[in-house]
Amino acid sequence: MGNRVDEFNEFRSRMNKRILEVDNRPIKRFFSVDTLTYEPGALDVKTKEMLGLVASMVLRCDDCVSYHIIQCKEAGVTDTEMFDVFSVGLVVGGSIVIPHVRTAYSALKELREAAQS
Amino acid sequence: MGNRVDEFNEFRSRMNKRILEVDNRPIKRFFSVDTLTYEPGALDVKTKEMLGLVASMVLRCDDCVSYHIIQCKEAGVTDTEMFDVFSVGLVVGGSIVIPHVRTAYSALKELREAAQS
Amino acid sequence: MGNRVDEFNEFRSRMNKRILEVDNRPIKRFFSVDTLTYEPGALDVKTKEMLGLVASMVLRCDDCVSYHIIQCKEAGVTDTEMFDVFSVGLVVGGSIVIPHVRTAYSALKELREAAQS
Amino acid sequence: MGNRVDEFNEFRSRMNKRILEVDNRPIKRFFSVDTLTYEPGALDVKTKEMLGLVASMVLRCDDCVSYHIIQCKEAGVTDTEMFDVFSVGLVVGGSIVIPHVRTAYSALKELREAAQS
Amino acid sequence: MGNRVDEFNEFRSRMNKRILEVDNRPIKRFFSVDTLTYEPGALDVKTKEMLGLVASMVLRCDDCVSYHIIQCKEAGVTDTEMFDVFSVGLVVGGSIVIPHVRTAYSALKELREAAQS
Amino acid sequence: MGNRVDEFNEFRSRMNKRILEVDNRPIKRFFSVDTLTYEPGALDVKTKEMLGLVASMVLRCDDCVSYHIIQCKEAGVTDTEMFDVFSVGLVVGGSIVIPHVRTAYSALKELREAAQS
Repeated sequence: MGNRVDEFNEFRSRMNKRILEVDNRPIKRFFSVDTLTYEPGALDVKTKEMLGLVASMVLRCDDCVSYHIIQCKEAGVTDTEMFDVFSVGLVVGGSIVIPHVRTAYSALKELREAAQS
Repeated sequence: MGNRVDEFNEFRSRMNKRILEVDNRPIKRFFSVDTLTYEPGALDVKTKEMLGLVASMVLRCDDCVSYHIIQCKEAGVTDTEMFDVFSVGLVVGGSIVIPHVRTAYSALKELREAAQS
Repeated sequence: MGNRVDEFNEFRSRMNKRILEVDNRPIKRFFSVDTLTYEPGALDVKTKEMLGLVASMVLRCDDCVSYHIIQCKEAGVTDTEMFDVFSVGLVVGGSIVIPHVRTAYSALKELREAAQS
Repeated sequence: MGNRVDEFNEFRSRMNKRILEVDNRPIKRFFSVDTLTYEPGALDVKTKEMLGLVASMVLRCDDCVSYHIIQCKEAGVTDTEMFDVFSVGLVVGGSIVIPHVRTAYSALKELREAAQS
Repeated sequence: MGNRVDEFNEFRSRMNKRILEVDNRPIKRFFSVDTLTYEPGALDVKTKEMLGLVASMVLRCDDCVSYHIIQCKEAGVTDTEMFDVFSVGLVVGGSIVIPHVRTAYSALKELREAAQS
Repeated sequence: MGNRVDEFNEFRSRMNKRILEVDNRPIKRFFSVDTLTYEPGALDVKTKEMLGLVASMVLRCDDCVSYHIIQCKEAGVTDTEMFDVFSVGLVVGGSIVIPHVRTAYSALKELREAAQS
């Protein structure tokens, strides 16, 4: 897998693990609700991950965008579908979202190259 | 159709019409990009409308939530699917989103009752 | 208790009850984490409620501000302490928070008058 | 002057007056910095008020939008200039800003009609 | 021109070019509306760029702040005028904007030094 | 003291000093209101700093989170109390706050290690 996305993913997992070792029940439970939310329900995982991605874009969180791009890719979202998600994020959230479209585009490109290598 | 949602929809259309009569090209064009975004592409209208709904929830815009609930309903989103969208919005955006889940729930109920009458 | 705050509180409880009757596990669990968060821990309820209030102010959610004002009052936050919370919210969040300081001030006044009647 | 804008303005002044009677120095001082900011400096009042308006639009605060529309009008911003401000707000902030463009348009129309009566 | 601002500008242009090569009409059109918005209209380019800058500050987007500082400078905004824009952004958006005032100040300094070298 | 937090703190102080040398009264005054806000009032410094921290978390400003973590630590907030603050920020602001909980956790760890060395 690509380098920057890879590094981020490793940091993310390591830190989350440590945070969950802390003895704070609301934080632990919040993390488990977060996991539960993306499990298949009336909507499938693919759709839910695209929802998570667009929400991250309009709230302009680069880490969350990178994370959901990875999840979307694993759930089978194609690149042209991904761009449709970006277009909704961009139009709802405005030009302020453009830097995050750049982040998303980079992450996507990195994952594609990693898959080909 | 239900009353409050109906009124909002009428006000929305009337105002947008007036705004588009104003001689300002960026505003006119923005509105046409906005329309274009929800047309079928790599993703179908149903998925795009759900993306618009979740983005509206996390950005906490009641008017936009009501509008996308109507569009989702027309695009065939079922009530249980709708609640899955709400759950992603709630977990990504936090308890600050709860008042907008209430708005969404009310709009949904009104549309259901209108459909039955 | 005062009228507007009272009405809001009644609407809030009724709607939350209905939302929780819906069969959606992430939503149900989110609501229970939300409740858990304000239970006494390393910090007491009074401090936690003030944290909830200032977070609601800077995120500019009137319903959440009204709700946490009620909770703060019940947890023993005095009016001068409340204004200290408002001052942090105002300075961190800027003049855009002023309308919510007005909401908070009104809710506070209403609760005080209700207590005296 | 128009009715709704008028009512808002009256409520705003009355509440601010009461809030400033409270013995809380940071709040008092914040309000005086807020006033100072829009006084003529390197930029004139007209430009500063347009800056305040666009900031209020992208932060999506209807009360602040109404307030700055009044101030802009008094500072001599014409209607076509006002629409240019709206266009920047809309494009930077995205479709989520549309409801506030509607609010702004209504306030503008009300002020124009009041001026003609 | 200065180094960091220069690098950002080069990355920005390169990425935007690639994004626009993608076959997605809403994204392409959004970018062209974005360009159109800052062309002279009822307001001149200088005023529009200051509006774009203050909107970027209160929405707290460092990339957008850097971009609009460059555009403002080219449109003839002086340093004292620039600080007036910062003051409106700071007071409307609150202390949370301070890190972006630091970014803006750094970008401004870099451009000044580059102009002198 | 730890390295990254230390560097940030040094950059922060140096830049603020320069910004305050600029001849712009609203900016100068805003900074002094900001300082005043965290002085002891009806609430003590410890509580006010926790309010500043949670507000920074939900507004998702990493620099502000790091700054208030340092201030909280100096004001005597223990690590378990700190996690209670994080839990309120996380639940009010949602999963979008998670990256900032990671930042906060890192800063906290760095301060603890620096204190032990």
